[in-house]
Amino acid sequence: MGETHTARRRRLAALVAARDADAVLVTRLVNVRYLTGLDSSRAALLVPAEGPAVLATDARYAGTAERVCPELPIVVDRLVSEALTARAAADGHRRLGFEAHDLTVEHHATLAEKAEVELTPLGHPVEELRMVKDEEEIALLREACAITDRAFAAVLPEIRAGVTERAVAIALERAMVDSGAERPAFESIVASGPNGAVPHHRPGGRELQPGDLVTMDFGALYDGYHADMTRTVAIGEPAGWQRDVYDLVHRAQLAGIGAALPGAETKAVDAAARDVIKDAGHGDAFGHGLGHGVGLEIHEAPLMGYDKTGKLMDRVPITAEPGVYLTGRGGVRIEDTLVVRPGGPELLTTTTKDLLVL
Amino acid sequence: MGETHTARRRRLAALVAARDADAVLVTRLVNVRYLTGLDSSRAALLVPAEGPAVLATDARYAGTAERVCPELPIVVDRLVSEALTARAAADGHRRLGFEAHDLTVEHHATLAEKAEVELTPLGHPVEELRMVKDEEEIALLREACAITDRAFAAVLPEIRAGVTERAVAIALERAMVDSGAERPAFESIVASGPNGAVPHHRPGGRELQPGDLVTMDFGALYDGYHADMTRTVAIGEPAGWQRDVYDLVHRAQLAGIGAALPGAETKAVDAAARDVIKDAGHGDAFGHGLGHGVGLEIHEAPLMGYDKTGKLMDRVPITAEPGVYLTGRGGVRIEDTLVVRPGGPELLTTTTKDLLVL
Repeated sequence: MGETHTARRRRLAALVAARDADAVLVTRLVNVRYLTGLDSSRAALLVPAEGPAVLATDARYAGTAERVCPELPIVVDRLVSEALTARAAADGHRRLGFEAHDLTVEHHATLAEKAEVELTPLGHPVEELRMVKDEEEIALLREACAITDRAFAAVLPEIRAGVTERAVAIALERAMVDSGAERPAFESIVASGPNGAVPHHRPGGRELQPGDLVTMDFGALYDGYHADMTRTVAIGEPAGWQRDVYDLVHRAQLAGIGAALPGAETKAVDAAARDVIKDAGHGDAFGHGLGHGVGLEIHEAPLMGYDKTGKLMDRVPITAEPGVYLTGRGGVRIEDTLVVRPGGPELLTTTTKDLLVL
Repeated sequence: MGETHTARRRRLAALVAARDADAVLVTRLVNVRYLTGLDSSRAALLVPAEGPAVLATDARYAGTAERVCPELPIVVDRLVSEALTARAAADGHRRLGFEAHDLTVEHHATLAEKAEVELTPLGHPVEELRMVKDEEEIALLREACAITDRAFAAVLPEIRAGVTERAVAIALERAMVDSGAERPAFESIVASGPNGAVPHHRPGGRELQPGDLVTMDFGALYDGYHADMTRTVAIGEPAGWQRDVYDLVHRAQLAGIGAALPGAETKAVDAAARDVIKDAGHGDAFGHGLGHGVGLEIHEAPLMGYDKTGKLMDRVPITAEPGVYLTGRGGVRIEDTLVVRPGGPELLTTTTKDLLVL
């Protein structure tokens, strides 16, 4: 991975130069990980427009940093941002970019007081780079999604009337870990019966009942990469309206996936799915965006919604997760993780989308 | 809990007035939870020096907010900070305090651009209040620690040669959930043999071996409150040096606990434990502070270390966790969660500290 990270830092250096800075101080930990491979709770990275980068971390991670990033000089200091700001000044940099969406007002004031460089916000250059994944990253996402699929298959026999939402959530999370996940990628949602009308319902003590639709939204974390998947199943034979809503959401999801091509406006992809639901008279029951980018974070660029701007590109992994939520009755959401490709999306989630009756 | 939260907001209002502000905008989610009871991923709270507070959250949490905080007016808006800043101006406030350790430079710039109030940093008033717990909070911590104790007892029979560190960590985490935890309070540490020399070792594929010391650092999250406990056990009969180091750390921990009285300087409490280890010639092998406050966060005020300032007070829950780490050989750490009381600490962790030989 050393070469991969070097290439990422080279692309960042070009952005730094284009934004008239001499260097950038990267403080968001997930961005430091992306640029170095170091997964830690305290680190920062100085990336100059020209010349080698410098990594700072504390004594706890110094050994790991040397092993993971043998090509980088490493400063061992608890005050990682302070150490690298001083280093930037010592190296003769004058305009030092920083991540204004990460540094707090308090921390910035402390840094600025002592700094012998000009601190300047640079936008979100690392997040911009992170949107398009390299094939190493897509391979990790593929494995995260495969683990998630396997966990769902393993837990299916346990999903039945009388089991609580919380028990299903725990079973899914344990099955993911047993299938190779580092841990769950986010807090799992299991929403049964009327709770299905709440998109972010927390699994509780409600027992699944015959006649319920049950929505499960979960995913595995694998080597830092997040899978995201949702399936809605029926407990016992579904009513007509339940099948209708399910088929509607399914068709909307397929329409969204079909529109997810390189060059497509994210709002057009959202609209492709949303229009199907609107045309069926349920537009008001789909209150969130179609999906979001996934990678080192569960939610990252691009966001896809009716009010979002931006375009999809080759090798951008996204979710497609339309839903219909009917207060007091229940809901349906169907979600896959997929990768935008020139010939049409590569689905990383491969579990069937036929309505499962359990 | 409504009255509890009202009382907390009243104490905060007094701090706001004392700091010459008309109101404070609370944006740190854990602080909003402390002041309202609302556990969400998007909320903010406006607390004026005089008059009622106003809560803002988005549509996902509006129903929960109405149920949890019936006494508060609720603004439903995705841009919670923006909505409350506008509300502060509309209510005639001029100096609006904010949490400079939470708001990013980018978000602050957006707010300040539109704000018709003067935004002024107020320090960390909510964290100051949170340090001393009320008895409701201590009861939740007590239950979190009891769950953690029960989980350790349940997993003890599985800790033996041939089992991997990761398997032990997973067993502990599952046992905590089975014993009533919401989830683990933090990523569990299981460090065996030479890995025990790394205070924050991540549990991996190493199998426990006869002759190992094994350090396990874990805890349960219960209704938002974090337990924190560490025990070191021996796999098979320990060598003389292992017993010596264990007894040393045990004596140091008892000395630290004995010094944890209301009015004690945190650095004096740290020194009480540290001096025991120093006197035995292992001062360099104890490279971290004695402990930290626990509550709605796993690490909160007060921090206890040789370089920390501050005093303990009645009803402050802390950890006491000295360790000795010998590179290449292994380590010992023993940690309890306890509450500072006038008559001497109340131990919330009750598992034996005799060296267990498994």
